Amino acid sequence: MGHGLFVTLEGGEGAGKSTLARTLKGKLESEGRAVVLTREPGGTPGAEQIRELLVRGDADRWSAMTEALLFYAARVDHVEKVIRPEVAAGRIVISDRFADSTLAYQGAAGGVPRERLKALHEIALGNFQPALTLLIDIPPETGLSRTKGRDGIEARFESKALAFHARLRAAYHALAESEPGRFVVLDGGQPPDVIAQQALSAILERLGDG
Amino acid sequence: MGHGLFVTLEGGEGAGKSTLARTLKGKLESEGRAVVLTREPGGTPGAEQIRELLVRGDADRWSAMTEALLFYAARVDHVEKVIRPEVAAGRIVISDRFADSTLAYQGAAGGVPRERLKALHEIALGNFQPALTLLIDIPPETGLSRTKGRDGIEARFESKALAFHARLRAAYHALAESEPGRFVVLDGGQPPDVIAQQALSAILERLGDG
Repeated sequence: MGHGLFVTLEGGEGAGKSTLARTLKGKLESEGRAVVLTREPGGTPGAEQIRELLVRGDADRWSAMTEALLFYAARVDHVEKVIRPEVAAGRIVISDRFADSTLAYQGAAGGVPRERLKALHEIALGNFQPALTLLIDIPPETGLSRTKGRDGIEARFESKALAFHARLRAAYHALAESEPGRFVVLDGGQPPDVIAQQALSAILERLGDG
Repeated sequence: MGHGLFVTLEGGEGAGKSTLARTLKGKLESEGRAVVLTREPGGTPGAEQIRELLVRGDADRWSAMTEALLFYAARVDHVEKVIRPEVAAGRIVISDRFADSTLAYQGAAGGVPRERLKALHEIALGNFQPALTLLIDIPPETGLSRTKGRDGIEARFESKALAFHARLRAAYHALAESEPGRFVVLDGGQPPDVIAQQALSAILERLGDG
């Protein structure tokens, strides 16, 4: 059994995160690795219930600060009950979104000062972070055209203006530049198999097999 | 119309907070004051839904940190949508529990370091605090004997050991001592009408009518 690893997938709506997650699981398992796919908000029974509060209702139902607190409540449950124990058991945990989504959505795009969200992370989770974050970068127009008709949380956030999504993309770029050791940026305009191969290489490198 | 005031009621289970809240509303309204009674967790449609997550299920369903984040998510919604606007409109808002409950329950009794909870408050609400906090002090045994058979959140917390409630009371005492200008401690062993009169005097004094 190899050692565990916590990998997160980030990016705007329709970037292809969930497709990439499934592809990576298949490829890693075919190499004999145990993989746990999970997502945020959610990933535990309690966090999925918090997710319900975030996905139902109007886009302006909660302020960005209230949203950030709900995301962190779900995140702490997720980290305590799934991510930490699975990584400790030697598994590769791949989460569709994690803390960088809060910095991008509620922070840069939603208006909560970044320093407040960083302080919230520290209070809730100390210095816990993914070993690797794969950012799939696509123009907001492309992502939005891919997600038309979806339900749930993404639909709720998609109802926000295109300007919101442009701020989101800029925020992700800034995050990736601020932590180049943790982030790998993937060009989401490439064919899915090319993106998956680049992502796989980055994971294997972190595992010391690359 | 007088100026608004934000008053909170604190204390262990069965201290008589909700009875006192109703009595105070009647007395203040008979003096021509507009009063809004509210409670935590809850007080807005969204916060009441968060409350449901806190009251359902086992006592150990959430970690104390996850609980604190859920309480603050509900609290920010409550402050933004009810407390601040009602006080600004000149009303007296009386809340059955507020931030001191988090310091007492998730902090001193639940094990989250007090400095972390103070930092969480600052992130979520800045320096927003009640103008007056009425702490009803009773021995834990008395309160528990009064609440036997109640449902919901208090019942969930009551299932915790008596030692928990003893820590809770000590925590409230420490909070009151650390902010003597905001807290008024009421001896919950007195007759209800005596307690209500003391509470009313404290409120009128804060309103400048005392």
